[in-house]
Amino acid sequence: MKIITQEIQKKTKGNCDIIDITGDINDILIKSGIKEGLCTAFSVGSTAGITTIEYEPGLLKDIPKLLDKLIPSAVRYNHDDTWGDGNGHSHLRSALFKTSLSIPIYKGELTLGTWQQVVFIDFDNRSRNRRIIVQIMGE
Amino acid sequence: MKIITQEIQKKTKGNCDIIDITGDINDILIKSGIKEGLCTAFSVGSTAGITTIEYEPGLLKDIPKLLDKLIPSAVRYNHDDTWGDGNGHSHLRSALFKTSLSIPIYKGELTLGTWQQVVFIDFDNRSRNRRIIVQIMGE
Amino acid sequence: MKIITQEIQKKTKGNCDIIDITGDINDILIKSGIKEGLCTAFSVGSTAGITTIEYEPGLLKDIPKLLDKLIPSAVRYNHDDTWGDGNGHSHLRSALFKTSLSIPIYKGELTLGTWQQVVFIDFDNRSRNRRIIVQIMGE
Repeated sequence: MKIITQEIQKKTKGNCDIIDITGDINDILIKSGIKEGLCTAFSVGSTAGITTIEYEPGLLKDIPKLLDKLIPSAVRYNHDDTWGDGNGHSHLRSALFKTSLSIPIYKGELTLGTWQQVVFIDFDNRSRNRRIIVQIMGE
Repeated sequence: MKIITQEIQKKTKGNCDIIDITGDINDILIKSGIKEGLCTAFSVGSTAGITTIEYEPGLLKDIPKLLDKLIPSAVRYNHDDTWGDGNGHSHLRSALFKTSLSIPIYKGELTLGTWQQVVFIDFDNRSRNRRIIVQIMGE
Repeated sequence: MKIITQEIQKKTKGNCDIIDITGDINDILIKSGIKEGLCTAFSVGSTAGITTIEYEPGLLKDIPKLLDKLIPSAVRYNHDDTWGDGNGHSHLRSALFKTSLSIPIYKGELTLGTWQQVVFIDFDNRSRNRRIIVQIMGE
């Protein structure tokens, strides 16, 4: 049983920037040589999220639009009184989406569907340099 | 340390069909002989989700009703312009619920509460044949 | 490879009581001696959730307020017809937030950000004594 823990770094635009990290994870998986086990992607920080979507232009518009309806950015939150950085909505979106995703590995591949990609979503209200931990455990 | 990776197949009705997969997971767990470790259930595809609920008739109505309020099916999404299959809401619901769930195993059992079942929810807008990966890692 | 499975117990006030469990998890991690691996926190029961937030007073008000907008407590749900305990909203919030969170461990620490804490949220409508399973797998 092996454990590989590595870091992906991404420069984002913030404001619901949705980045496909499937290729980065696959690179780590292939180098690890692990054929069966579990892969966990974890976003360091509390204003981002990790999930899976079909990575196509329509959804890249739909997700920010949905979030602006459910958790509007143009509202003052109590969080904004604490720090004054105006990103209360970013924190709330991250709390809901959560910063972790685990995917089984089988026969040397992530068990994703054909139209299913792993995405990092930056909910913060500004450009950020982001760290994502990718851990693979298996054999 | 052992790793067992198996597949559950389910025929669903789509449209927020909620299926209790606890029994299927328990069958795999018992056959594996693993007494302590981690179980991950992962939905292959980007229009479904996995979570836990108390599996009772009231919630089976409440969940679709809530989702039709938060992420309505009767709205045109940009995703629908890409493929024309009218399931933009299905993708958005899946992105939010996410397709993965990990549950600790202890003394040969999932550490679920008495009134807590693992469910697969098919958010797609039509009947589907679904694949769910169940992976158990432990000893 | 070691597996440590332990239980945290918390008395909550219910009604979206948000409890920082990072210290409890770190205590288990330090005693385990595990330096690299995966930590999973799992809430036993179907009316709570586990996620990460920046644990500061503003968000502790924002999260209950957001949830009361998205999944109001002052609405009658079908779940309430089944049991009459008036906590349909608690179940729906838990189904959405989910009861599980996995975090990579590296160099003996959870890979959390500086302003990122692991929280248990009790969505139930009354005070509860809660059990949270913490499992660490690694070496």
